[in-house]
Amino acid sequence: MAVYTDIAEEELSEFIAGYDVGELLSYKGIAEGTENTNYLLHTSQASFILTLYERRVEESDLPFFLGLMQHLAKKGVTCPLPVQRRDGSMIGRVAGRPAALITFLEGMWLRRPSPRHCRAVGEALARLHLAALDFPQSRANALAPADWRPLWEKAKPQADTVEPGLAAEVEKDLGELLENWPRDLPEGIVHADLFPDNVFFLEDEVSGLIDFYFACHDQLAYDVATCLNAWCFEKDLSYNLTKGTAFLAGYQSVRPLERAEIDALPVLARGSAMRFMLTRLHDWLVLPDGPLIKKRDPMEYIRRLRFHRQIASPSEYGLETA
Amino acid sequence: MAVYTDIAEEELSEFIAGYDVGELLSYKGIAEGTENTNYLLHTSQASFILTLYERRVEESDLPFFLGLMQHLAKKGVTCPLPVQRRDGSMIGRVAGRPAALITFLEGMWLRRPSPRHCRAVGEALARLHLAALDFPQSRANALAPADWRPLWEKAKPQADTVEPGLAAEVEKDLGELLENWPRDLPEGIVHADLFPDNVFFLEDEVSGLIDFYFACHDQLAYDVATCLNAWCFEKDLSYNLTKGTAFLAGYQSVRPLERAEIDALPVLARGSAMRFMLTRLHDWLVLPDGPLIKKRDPMEYIRRLRFHRQIASPSEYGLETA
Repeated sequence: MAVYTDIAEEELSEFIAGYDVGELLSYKGIAEGTENTNYLLHTSQASFILTLYERRVEESDLPFFLGLMQHLAKKGVTCPLPVQRRDGSMIGRVAGRPAALITFLEGMWLRRPSPRHCRAVGEALARLHLAALDFPQSRANALAPADWRPLWEKAKPQADTVEPGLAAEVEKDLGELLENWPRDLPEGIVHADLFPDNVFFLEDEVSGLIDFYFACHDQLAYDVATCLNAWCFEKDLSYNLTKGTAFLAGYQSVRPLERAEIDALPVLARGSAMRFMLTRLHDWLVLPDGPLIKKRDPMEYIRRLRFHRQIASPSEYGLETA
Repeated sequence: MAVYTDIAEEELSEFIAGYDVGELLSYKGIAEGTENTNYLLHTSQASFILTLYERRVEESDLPFFLGLMQHLAKKGVTCPLPVQRRDGSMIGRVAGRPAALITFLEGMWLRRPSPRHCRAVGEALARLHLAALDFPQSRANALAPADWRPLWEKAKPQADTVEPGLAAEVEKDLGELLENWPRDLPEGIVHADLFPDNVFFLEDEVSGLIDFYFACHDQLAYDVATCLNAWCFEKDLSYNLTKGTAFLAGYQSVRPLERAEIDALPVLARGSAMRFMLTRLHDWLVLPDGPLIKKRDPMEYIRRLRFHRQIASPSEYGLETA
């Protein structure tokens, strides 16, 4: 939601000269993405997104992220395609930052997705999972359960300022999750951040999946659980069973979930809520305020945690089980 | 530098249906402008800027601003053209805000303009002044000398926290300026905010003048003085005589300054520096900090004030006087 790095016109023109994309006509910093700086470029050939990778993204991970997008795009997943430089590489440098130029996808992200959109996202997620199965590179999840405790330790001392009793509640949850975390589910590449602002639609069809900068190797059903949290709760934080049913049916129409994945859904959904709660809580309590920091309320994910904690059967998510 | 208002896709599609511009394909909030929210839209026909007017812009001023852009564009000034709605009006409403759709101008604003660019801006400013002479509407300058004291009174009690002695210095300056302000110079419509980020270039030619939301009726030479402040000082706040000479020569090649305008240039430049210093100082000291507020250092304009105060003759700006 911020433009962290400004670019002067001469340095951008010089950077663009490293690509076969025509002449630079305009560039505007856009208010999308929370980790990187993004510009929407018009050249004499087409529109592009220029991403400058800021400090939260490891430069050594870029070949994985960009290679994955290239792999997926070649397999027909509608995701941005990194443009190759004249020297064949996909990573350049501008304004002191590693940078990539990627194709611009038309489409809009939905502030109020309907069940029909949830179904489409389920299908798209499953297609992404299948298309990535033969992607040869790998990357560990930097926000896997083992990473939750260190985040929590930093936020814990002030957690009760957010809500009295929160420290004890999260401590207990975290212990239970780490103890019961599933380990033998089907694995592959997960998007790990497929929130509504990362899915573009045109006329109710998915026109683009973007922002692969949390993608990693993990259990596939964890991605399903993350989407349940991201797509199937209402603004009042109630679970929308119709949307959950639609999302899961969409996913299963492309890749049916195994029995063990279904059984693990409540703990995965709770864990995914924990992961997003912890990063939000950390930013909320630990990061300094600043004009470029958009802090998001951790309580939205505490509420999801509480919902998942009381789930008695995965069927409550809307799974059409046999 | 901020997107204050988010728009849902359905409401934007509905808004766009009021125009004959094709189907909406994408929209991105852009980090330009400090007063309003701007989106860059792609439709099946072209690119557009959608501006949502936030609280700092008076809705009753919009017919003046948009009418002026239309008038100037028709007279060949490269500025955005407000798109007419199917009902003939230029002002719509979206997300609870008055809003206008304007044509998108390719081009880049220059972080480091050269003397050549300063000359081109001088020419463009003079052309704008001449083209606006027969514009039938008028609008008073809301930040004219009479408005400086109320702004100053709000900031004054804390002014010495910015620099010791500042309160007394500004108080004295303000008195002198109000006493000596010229009143009989040629008048017309001025842009009043023609900073580098409001002028687009393509291959060293001016491709667009934007952001007319401070435009008003005032003395034309005041606009010249504002551009001297905006274009002809270096990052170290020294005056660049080469740029000043180029800018003024460019302006005079289209509209020669009268003797009285030239004589008034030091006091106008000092007054213009005062106006920008005061709004910055006010925001710096009086506005609360927030994620959407980008505060700018008032000292940059104190330094300009000091420079103009010691000018002995307008020729020091680089005026080629007879």
